[in-house]
Amino acid sequence: MTTKAYGAFAGDRPLEPMDIERRAPGPHDVQIEIAYCGVCHSDLHQVRSEWAGTLYPCVPGHEIVGHVAAVGDQVTAFTVGETVGVGCMVDSCQHCHACDADLEQYCKEGFVGTYNGPTADAPGHTLGGYSQRIVVNDRFVLKIRHPEEQLAAVAPLLCAGITTYSPLRHWQAGPGKKVGIVGIGGLGHVGVKLAHAMGAHVVAFTTSDSKRDDARALGADEVVNSRNADEMAAHANSFDFILNTVAASHNLDAYTALLKLDGTMTLVGVPEHPHPSPNVGVLIFGRRSIAGSLIGGIAETQEMLDFCAEHGITADIEMIPIQQIDQAYDRMQRSDVKYRFVIDSASLANGTTADER
Amino acid sequence: MTTKAYGAFAGDRPLEPMDIERRAPGPHDVQIEIAYCGVCHSDLHQVRSEWAGTLYPCVPGHEIVGHVAAVGDQVTAFTVGETVGVGCMVDSCQHCHACDADLEQYCKEGFVGTYNGPTADAPGHTLGGYSQRIVVNDRFVLKIRHPEEQLAAVAPLLCAGITTYSPLRHWQAGPGKKVGIVGIGGLGHVGVKLAHAMGAHVVAFTTSDSKRDDARALGADEVVNSRNADEMAAHANSFDFILNTVAASHNLDAYTALLKLDGTMTLVGVPEHPHPSPNVGVLIFGRRSIAGSLIGGIAETQEMLDFCAEHGITADIEMIPIQQIDQAYDRMQRSDVKYRFVIDSASLANGTTADER
Repeated sequence: MTTKAYGAFAGDRPLEPMDIERRAPGPHDVQIEIAYCGVCHSDLHQVRSEWAGTLYPCVPGHEIVGHVAAVGDQVTAFTVGETVGVGCMVDSCQHCHACDADLEQYCKEGFVGTYNGPTADAPGHTLGGYSQRIVVNDRFVLKIRHPEEQLAAVAPLLCAGITTYSPLRHWQAGPGKKVGIVGIGGLGHVGVKLAHAMGAHVVAFTTSDSKRDDARALGADEVVNSRNADEMAAHANSFDFILNTVAASHNLDAYTALLKLDGTMTLVGVPEHPHPSPNVGVLIFGRRSIAGSLIGGIAETQEMLDFCAEHGITADIEMIPIQQIDQAYDRMQRSDVKYRFVIDSASLANGTTADER
Repeated sequence: MTTKAYGAFAGDRPLEPMDIERRAPGPHDVQIEIAYCGVCHSDLHQVRSEWAGTLYPCVPGHEIVGHVAAVGDQVTAFTVGETVGVGCMVDSCQHCHACDADLEQYCKEGFVGTYNGPTADAPGHTLGGYSQRIVVNDRFVLKIRHPEEQLAAVAPLLCAGITTYSPLRHWQAGPGKKVGIVGIGGLGHVGVKLAHAMGAHVVAFTTSDSKRDDARALGADEVVNSRNADEMAAHANSFDFILNTVAASHNLDAYTALLKLDGTMTLVGVPEHPHPSPNVGVLIFGRRSIAGSLIGGIAETQEMLDFCAEHGITADIEMIPIQQIDQAYDRMQRSDVKYRFVIDSASLANGTTADER
């Protein structure tokens, strides 16, 4: 199936319209007509070849929502017309210890990413959600139970949502727990909403005083400007858990010192340049931990979507047509978005490919 | 009570004999005649002013074993003649959350160290175990149930033993778990014995091929030369827990990459120069943690001593008279000791103080 998409033919070229092929649905496949696709920092890094191993043409996008257009004859869980989503993964080995534990994101053989992952389909690597449709194995398709009018704002939950939900659950954010969220951006703003809905006392950390009111509106009980040493010191030794969504290199000690005994700070972003080496004494004198966490498994992603539907949680988004993707990337790099760009996939129909021009 | 001791009057002076005063036992005090005192790296750092805040005169020593010589009239748990020990702590606030949880080492007000801690006794800071006797509040005195002839080799358990036992227990080393011990020195050699006795599958990491046989004799099931990339790679993604006893700056990623999903590496040494900044991606792709741990609480120290008595565990030691302490420090800095120096406290009687000379 020829499908209009937007992607890059090389790391130093802007995104442009292109036609890609989607496979006909196999027995276990779900064919999804994409309605919206969120714009993640990963998209930018991958398509611009800022990470190693980008395969071209590269079509990014792993915050996909849409409607089922067809299902394979072995598919029982989904029906045509149903509202569904696809996140960062479209396959995994399904037989390793991690997959058996519903932790496909840690698949021993490596999960298959929604873009840039290995596939038998042409061109030999997966192509993502900046496209009109996608065909995905039914085990990697999620049900979306939000009201239809919220659909665009649901899209970012497929990556930003699960990336914050999974560590918040794993480290048991909830009533009686004091939880910090570092960075109020695409990930952090969802993290604040989720931690608040889980019942934790939520403290948002931002470097920008302009985000104070916003952070409270998102659900933060307190907001700390991390550049204010006095504000930071007032929270020393008090956090059960800190979710650090900031990928840019920064001083981790400023936050680990705020953890109480046995507290954990979990990082979900890989910095381009290493963080300053963390102070080991701060870890030792408090049995504190620094951990990492990667998205979440498929079952947990469904749990997250259901939790968000139940609590009325979506991302705060700014909708764009695909033709504005490069400007959106530039603004995203300046943190000039509240808080996630989402592509209106209908705009793909307006694109003319190189062949058509 | 005038008591012969060995200590330094300044960071740039060698240790020398001195007379110190010990308080008369109060109602809750235990007076201990010291038989042996282990020599810990901390002693060297503190007395040579390599850490901030050394108060002089400085008498190091916090791996103390000996016999009760007198008890205060409110002391019921100890009797004269009993074999006892004192570790790194001689007091704490006793009313904070940590103290209430038997985690005095994380006391909110800071525990009182066996040396260099605040005290009402002259000279205003505590003086440690390089001395003939010590007077300690009974809550910080440990019972030693090993055979008397093992007493010298028990001394290092009071610091090296609990520093390794506590994290091994906290992170649940035991049957079915694969546990790494990094560094086969004063701490690590006890760590190998303890992890083995707990029933874990123990892998010792050393940079020295000469320690291979020793490590196996200590109880390691496998020994890995950490400078051998192939040996290291063979253990990728396989450890439940790694206890890293190496304080010298080194590449932590080499070990975190060996942790399995949800594995933790715990550091118990503060490096003089920071470790290279750990690779966050290695943490994220495996939900791995880097943690710290500080000695252990008093109740757990007693548990450790009883566990060691039951399993016949002591440290491997080299006994020295106090007069050889500076040479011992020099050898310790070269890792030229298997595996812990212990001072025969009887040798203190041979010292002549400056006043006597």
